[in-house]
Amino acid sequence: MAHLSLRTDDLHASPVRDMLNVAMRPEVISFAGGLPAAETFAGLEAASPAPRELLQYGPTEGEPELRARIAEELQDLGIDAPPERVLVLSGSQQGIDLAAKLVVDRGAAVAVEEPAYLAALQVFRFFGAQFFGLDRADPAAGWDQAAPRLAYVTPTFQNPTGICWTAPERQALAQACDRHDVILFEDDPYRDLAYAPSERRPAVSWCERASWIYQGSFSKTVAPGLRLGFLAASEDLFTYLVRLKQAADLHTNRLSQWMVLQYLTAPDRAQRMGQVTAFYRERRDSFDRALQRHLGGLADWAAPAGGLFFWVTLRGGIDAQALLARALERNVLFTPGGHFMARGGASSSMRLNFSLAAPEAAERGLEILGELLRVG
Amino acid sequence: MAHLSLRTDDLHASPVRDMLNVAMRPEVISFAGGLPAAETFAGLEAASPAPRELLQYGPTEGEPELRARIAEELQDLGIDAPPERVLVLSGSQQGIDLAAKLVVDRGAAVAVEEPAYLAALQVFRFFGAQFFGLDRADPAAGWDQAAPRLAYVTPTFQNPTGICWTAPERQALAQACDRHDVILFEDDPYRDLAYAPSERRPAVSWCERASWIYQGSFSKTVAPGLRLGFLAASEDLFTYLVRLKQAADLHTNRLSQWMVLQYLTAPDRAQRMGQVTAFYRERRDSFDRALQRHLGGLADWAAPAGGLFFWVTLRGGIDAQALLARALERNVLFTPGGHFMARGGASSSMRLNFSLAAPEAAERGLEILGELLRVG
Repeated sequence: MAHLSLRTDDLHASPVRDMLNVAMRPEVISFAGGLPAAETFAGLEAASPAPRELLQYGPTEGEPELRARIAEELQDLGIDAPPERVLVLSGSQQGIDLAAKLVVDRGAAVAVEEPAYLAALQVFRFFGAQFFGLDRADPAAGWDQAAPRLAYVTPTFQNPTGICWTAPERQALAQACDRHDVILFEDDPYRDLAYAPSERRPAVSWCERASWIYQGSFSKTVAPGLRLGFLAASEDLFTYLVRLKQAADLHTNRLSQWMVLQYLTAPDRAQRMGQVTAFYRERRDSFDRALQRHLGGLADWAAPAGGLFFWVTLRGGIDAQALLARALERNVLFTPGGHFMARGGASSSMRLNFSLAAPEAAERGLEILGELLRVG
Repeated sequence: MAHLSLRTDDLHASPVRDMLNVAMRPEVISFAGGLPAAETFAGLEAASPAPRELLQYGPTEGEPELRARIAEELQDLGIDAPPERVLVLSGSQQGIDLAAKLVVDRGAAVAVEEPAYLAALQVFRFFGAQFFGLDRADPAAGWDQAAPRLAYVTPTFQNPTGICWTAPERQALAQACDRHDVILFEDDPYRDLAYAPSERRPAVSWCERASWIYQGSFSKTVAPGLRLGFLAASEDLFTYLVRLKQAADLHTNRLSQWMVLQYLTAPDRAQRMGQVTAFYRERRDSFDRALQRHLGGLADWAAPAGGLFFWVTLRGGIDAQALLARALERNVLFTPGGHFMARGGASSSMRLNFSLAAPEAAERGLEILGELLRVG
């Protein structure tokens, strides 16, 4: 038998992606993934034709015009990131891989929200991270005894909870990282999907001494199939991240970079983004009403101010994983909360994606969940 | 100061990519990179428009039609790879990253050709590999005492030497891997750039018991800017590689996959490939003649039967790195052989890329190298 790396022991499949294979069947109603609605994607046809020179190898850091444009927008958010410190990514999942490579040795302490984005947990775990819970009300709790190397957070419309940190919470985290020399890694893929006025100033914008990485995604605002994201980082980390990117895939697809630049500079961009958020706001609201109709009294939740998920907690301590087993028989899919817990375990919460299913399908799916809960 | 991973100590920049920044200046004649000639790229315009559904997230493994097509071609090469064991990559550099993650722990023994592809050495080194030289005339030498976990080879038009292994050499390597339970990782990006009849049967096609990974690239036959490659692997490794791919970037750009599928199924594909190889054959031959004119008597080389490089060894033990320092002052760039050596060190060999520079520029660049060598 081939001799594999120690890391392989921790190499579990993504439960969400495995479920997505089931979700492809047309009879299935899926609340499981995090897929944006195809109705919101930018048009392929709108983009002006890409210059032929983009067929050649390109710079690891990304196309200069795209980096400059991203840097401008980051500076508007208060982030200290000139174009020279913007790195284009093949989707923001790649940023997690690069950050883990840069920071995480076996046994390295990583602070994460509880719950946290499951694919980030998987990558950190793969590189041997030991997880510590991060309480946004008291981010530095325990750091005097032992500070983590890295704090990974999604303060804006968090996946899975939809929570949006307040400004004082963001600032307190940045200051704790400053004080304890902890690298602050802020993942911000949902910031443009805001359905109500929300605090969205990036936490890293408050960093004064701490090293930091901030990343964003175009999967929710342009199209995920292009696999395009970006990161910016403090000076001490940036060069390393470029080298890691180079070793990972040399550089990101240049045609995607061209298409996204077209999108960012399109005169109707703000108008299109307004349509996208209006579309999702309506979908969220109708999902909320369907939840009330079918799970009212059986579960608790708060409609999220942004992002793509409802975080729903079943009353009476019902195990969401057990509910899923029965829901699957009725062709309804969701992600049980335990998958988002760094240390695993049962959970009576579940993540319901509201962006993909059309309102009628969502209604039917939630009706089935309600029935299953009532039958008990 | 931020606490980084142990791996970071080994995180050197790629000497080639750093040089490529210099190579961008128009006055520079570069033999340093491995860039294909833009004249050979498939047209953007030829592809039929991509279906809009490709804008959504896609399967980690790749588009089913593309995987099926690749599998067909692999089966024609004698490789046991059904579509279910083909993984589309964001360029073949990614395959090296995935294989290293799967196999290489700190201190793990990896057998490589001497010299070997430098960006592969970098990735294996980053994960902590200890290198052992692989002699194609006696691949299992020393394996009775201590067999490596992995043997990484590029038997067809190797980078940097251009060497093509004979069939018995390929078979002997596969059998050695079978016998010693060594994973055979065959990198085959140049196979379609054949300028003379050459043995090209993949070494992995001879494996009977050994685990194996075989990878290819579309960077040289379609266009590198798309970042598209693929791998196939033995059953025991494949599922792990898919999970690692998922953690690295979820999946590869779907529009690129569409474009490459168009290319693979185009009725004029064979004709176009014939034009590409004719173009490169001519470029190789004129480069060879220019070498004879300017470096004849000063260096030794063999015109490669395929691929993109001449491997030139300076007579009299001259250090290629020292020559480069002087060549840079005259705006001529190449890659000194030492960079391709797993254990570093000086080398009197250099890798000269013949695909990018137009014949007149190549002539001038080689003339300058000849002058520098004559002045001593």
